[in-house]
Parts: sequence; C-alpha cells; structure tokens
Amino acid sequence: MSAGVATEALQSLIARIRPARRADADTVRTHIDCLTKPPGSLGRLEGLALRLALIYGDPPPPLLRRVVFVLAADHGVAARGVSAYPSEVTEQMCRNFAAGGAAINAIAGCVGSDVVVVDMGVDADLSSERGIVDRKIRRGTRDLAAEPALTRAEARDAILAGAALVEERAAGVDLVGLGEMGIGNTTAATAMSAALTGRPLEQLLGPGTGVSGARLEQKRQAVEAALKRCGDRRAPIDILAEMGGLEIAGLVGIILGSAACGRAVVSDGFIAGAATLAAVRICPDARDYVFPSHRSSEPGHAVILGALGFEPLMELGLHLGEGTGACLAFPLLDAAAAILREMATFSSAGVSDSDV
Amino acid sequence: MSAGVATEALQSLIARIRPARRADADTVRTHIDCLTKPPGSLGRLEGLALRLALIYGDPPPPLLRRVVFVLAADHGVAARGVSAYPSEVTEQMCRNFAAGGAAINAIAGCVGSDVVVVDMGVDADLSSERGIVDRKIRRGTRDLAAEPALTRAEARDAILAGAALVEERAAGVDLVGLGEMGIGNTTAATAMSAALTGRPLEQLLGPGTGVSGARLEQKRQAVEAALKRCGDRRAPIDILAEMGGLEIAGLVGIILGSAACGRAVVSDGFIAGAATLAAVRICPDARDYVFPSHRSSEPGHAVILGALGFEPLMELGLHLGEGTGACLAFPLLDAAAAILREMATFSSAGVSDSDV
Repeated sequence: MSAGVATEALQSLIARIRPARRADADTVRTHIDCLTKPPGSLGRLEGLALRLALIYGDPPPPLLRRVVFVLAADHGVAARGVSAYPSEVTEQMCRNFAAGGAAINAIAGCVGSDVVVVDMGVDADLSSERGIVDRKIRRGTRDLAAEPALTRAEARDAILAGAALVEERAAGVDLVGLGEMGIGNTTAATAMSAALTGRPLEQLLGPGTGVSGARLEQKRQAVEAALKRCGDRRAPIDILAEMGGLEIAGLVGIILGSAACGRAVVSDGFIAGAATLAAVRICPDARDYVFPSHRSSEPGHAVILGALGFEPLMELGLHLGEGTGACLAFPLLDAAAAILREMATFSSAGVSDSDV
Repeated sequence: MSAGVATEALQSLIARIRPARRADADTVRTHIDCLTKPPGSLGRLEGLALRLALIYGDPPPPLLRRVVFVLAADHGVAARGVSAYPSEVTEQMCRNFAAGGAAINAIAGCVGSDVVVVDMGVDADLSSERGIVDRKIRRGTRDLAAEPALTRAEARDAILAGAALVEERAAGVDLVGLGEMGIGNTTAATAMSAALTGRPLEQLLGPGTGVSGARLEQKRQAVEAALKRCGDRRAPIDILAEMGGLEIAGLVGIILGSAACGRAVVSDGFIAGAATLAAVRICPDARDYVFPSHRSSEPGHAVILGALGFEPLMELGLHLGEGTGACLAFPLLDAAAAILREMATFSSAGVSDSDV
C-alpha cells in the first residue's frame, strides 16, 4: 500500500471507533441492582456486565462466535541470544498451531473458540501451510538494538492487516482474543512498554521464556540501545516501528479493528498488553472495547495493566502468550453477559428484597 | 435411619475414600515438562493438571458431565436478625432456582453444568415443587445461639443424604460443584470456622449478605454464645451439629461422596469452604479430590483456605454462594485436563527445545 493511502486508511480506521454507548450506564446499574442477589455480590462480574452492555446493548447477546487470533513473527534481535529458544521455534510453533498441538489449541477448544493463526512476519516460508493465514509484511524485524525494527510504513501496514483480519470476519464474530508467538518478542515488548510508560527498565525487564544471567544482560543491553536511539520520541506509531514487532503491530490493528466493529476484545499477557497500550495511546476510545484477562508473571505486565487502568481478572502465573489467558477469560465474560440476559429480578421472581 | 446404622454407614463412606493415585506424580510432571511450551509457563494450570491426572489418570478424560448441587436449608438463628434478608428468602430463592432465574442458573448454563437444587431443610413445604429434590431432614436448624443447631444424628443423616446425592448419580457425573442457599448461613459458617480453626472471631466475622452495626453485633453475639457452649469439643461432627446447618452438613456429604466415587469436587465461597474444612477434618484423604475456586470477599474465607492449604484460583469479589464461584472455575479445570490430553510434545511436534 502506498504511504499516503495507508496513512489515510489508518486515519479512517481510527475515525470509525466510537465510545461504547449502546446502553445507558445508570440504567444498566439499576438493572443489575434489581437482580435476585445481594447488591454487589457478583463482584467483578457486575462491572464486566456493565461494560458488555455498553458495547452490545442490555442485555448483551450470547457471545458464541469467538476467535483468538494468534499472530506470529520473528525478531532480528533474537540473533543476540535474548531468548531461551532459537528463532526457528517461531516457524515450528506455527506448524504446531496449524496441527492443533499447542496450548492455545487445547484451551481454545475448551471455551468454544476458533483459533486463527496468522503469519505476520515469520522468517520462513509458510505460504503453503494449510491453516496459516498469510499476511506476511516481511521476514522478521530488523535488530532493534542496532536500527529501527520496522519502517513506519511497515508498522502501519501491519496494523492495517490486523484490523482487516477482524473486519473481514466481523459479521461472524462476537468476541475476539489476542494471541501471539514470536521468539524474541518479550525484548520488543519490554522496550515498547518502557518507551510508552516512561517507567524504569528495572520494573519491566523479566525472564521471558526463562532467561537469566548473560542472556538477560544481552536483553537489557538490547532494550537500552533501542531506548537510547529512540530518544524522546513518544508517538506510539514511532515506538512501534522503532522497537516493536510485526505480530505486535498486527495486534494493535486487531484491537482497533475490533473497536471499530463494536466487538469486545480480550487482551492476554505481556506482549498483547504492550500492543493494547499502544492501541489505546493511538486511539483512547478503543479502551472501551478491551478487557484484561490475566496478569502474567512477566513483571512488566503489571506495569502495563496499571498504565491502562485495568485490574486483571485472574492471576494464574501464566507466561506463555498464544492467547491462552485471553481464552481463559472468555467464560467470565459469558457469565457476566448471562446474568443480564437470564437472571430474574426481585419483583419478577417474587423474592423479598433486603430489609435493611 | 437408626443411630447405629447411620454411624456404620458414615464409617463405611469414609473407608471408601482412598488417596488419589490413578497416575504416578513424577511421570505426570515429566509429561507436562515435555509439552510444547517453556517449563512452568502454564502456571497454576500445570498444578491443576497434575491433580486431575492423579484423580482420573493421565490424560484425564473431558469432564463434560458436570453438576452443581445447590443445597438449601434454613437457620433458627436467622430469627435474631443476623441477615439483611428475612428467612422466607430461602424458600423464595429455591423456587427461583427451580424456575431458572438465579445467578447460578445463568452461570452454570455458561459452563455446561446441570444445577440440582436440593431441599435439605427449608422451613417451608417445597415437596410439590418441580425441580427441587426433597432430602429434608427437618424444617431448619434450632437457634445455634441458644442450643445445638442439630442433633448428632441429624447432622450425620444430612451428611449421608449429601453423599447419596453424588453416589446415586456418579455413573453420569464427571465433575461436581458445591452450592448452597440459606438465610443465616454465614453465621453458622463463621461459628464453625472459628471452632474448626481456633482463630479469633475478628478474623472471621464479616458482613454476609451485607449487615453492619446492630445486626453485625447480633451475629457476633450469636457466634460467641455457640462457641462458649461448644467449649473445647473439636470433633468436626460435633462442631457441625452444634453450630452448622443442614445444607452445610449436606455439602460435607457431597465432598465425601465425590471423593469416595473418585470425582473432583470444586468448592465455592465461605459456606462451602466451611463445609470443605469440616469434610477434610473428618477424612483428610478427601482433600485430594477437592479444588478451590475463588476467594470470597467474606473475610473468613481466606482463613478457611489457609487452613486447607489452598490457593484460590480467582479473586473476583464474589460473595453470593449458590455455587457461582465453583462453576466459574470449571473452565480452568477443563483447560488443565485438555493440555494433558491434547498438547503435542517437543519431539512429537518437531519443535526445538530450549537451548539454555
């Protein structure tokens, strides 16, 4: 896509995103307080119910048709040995996703979710692999420690490709999950989240797939080099290009596309969190459509959730990505929607209300 | 049932409970570490997978046929105004459960669970109500502040009735959830958990359905009177009779019955937690079959979970009971079982393992 056309397409995407106002918040709160239960006794489900009603109307429909998009790409910085796994694992795991053998396949199946695997920039030829959607922008990013990982045009194209993945399917999708795979991508997400939040690296740097010692020091030096080069540029699209990844930019697009189509989108761990923060910085109204799921044990995720103002729904020590945490949160959203749709009120059920 | 026959039946039930050893723990751990993911990256799901494998074998089957038992009963102590709701709400909510209008109906439906509503001791005639199983031991407990809530024989009969609910259905049930309804039952559970744990009342007394001020003071006095009368008797069956409830004793039976039948049973909030603690004190091997779900915002629940050595899976501010938290944990167990059943290993998928 030419730079001018892509810039216009991105502006048009952002312009289609509106605050979620399909119901009146006070009316929904009154509805929730009339249901046959003590006030507030459904805890966090009540806040989820309100947010879903604002997106889908009150009551929300059953969110039966759900998709977790697993976006994959490679990272030039992986050559520096920042991960416990070699880069070829990105390609190998894509084939594993397509064959149904990964954690996300098992978990998505439990919650009735389709898995759509997308090659956003794997450094291998997957074009003939059945079950992998080809949206490759380039074979991996450049080494973010040495030069910008992506051009602005590449980052924009990846965002638009991500948005198109949702928009093409929107008529058949009620609920979206964010997943990713890319050896080296916690290094990119660490750099991005440092630049987006301004928080010190000590709060953000973590083991990723399980590195420590010399590899963790490599990771720190790579992130520091990227941050130094990026200087005080704080436009999220610049940060995404300088130190992001093609799967991360694609997730930004999925979030913006979901928001534009009025679909709830469930974030995942540290990498999806960095994409979520970038997306909300690009378009603050998109936040209305995003739900947190778990808090990863990767330390930077807590910082990202704080910057987004999100309380995670679960804390299970997960640190895998792939959309596994997002899928595990789907049943909580189902339950929240169902209480608005199915519960009786004190008066309709003939139940005596509180006498205090 | 005569006292002698009931005592023998309870001893026989306990004798049928064996430690969960359907798989070898080290072999399961090795299996988990060969799956295509960094070691430990599925966090708490890995521990759940191990526990499920010990109960059902490795890999565990899909736990598709699940039932949440919602046991209902009234409490004599409710006449002292310890709840925000009048006692007749127990009966009214039973009719609401049977009609499908309560929170548990909405949430159980989302996770594919049947709801079995059981009258263990409601102070009303529900015998002609379709959809309510009649296992009434008596119409409510006596006032625990003034006298023993139940005789030992009544408590034992309620336990056996609960166990029979599971054992009768065991061939068609893979997974069990604990639910309850009974105006006044946080008072009973508070007294029971104080007696079972020996912890000071300040750590256990909470708002229940939402009481404060004079009602909370009534609740405190009722609990203190029961504890004083009970003295240093610490046999769990005595504690259950002195200050428990018919739905709580029934839940003890469901836990013991599930363990005897080799089925996983998912606990719920504060009331189900008190029943779980009593069951595990009666038969420590039963713990192998019990899974925690959420941590209730009722303060005593954290004390109970600690006494059981359980880390809750979720903390959602729930404080409703009915089995709502238990049902919300079912998908986490599904996911844990599915990773053992469906995930490929590094070698079977041709994925390179960690190079550190």
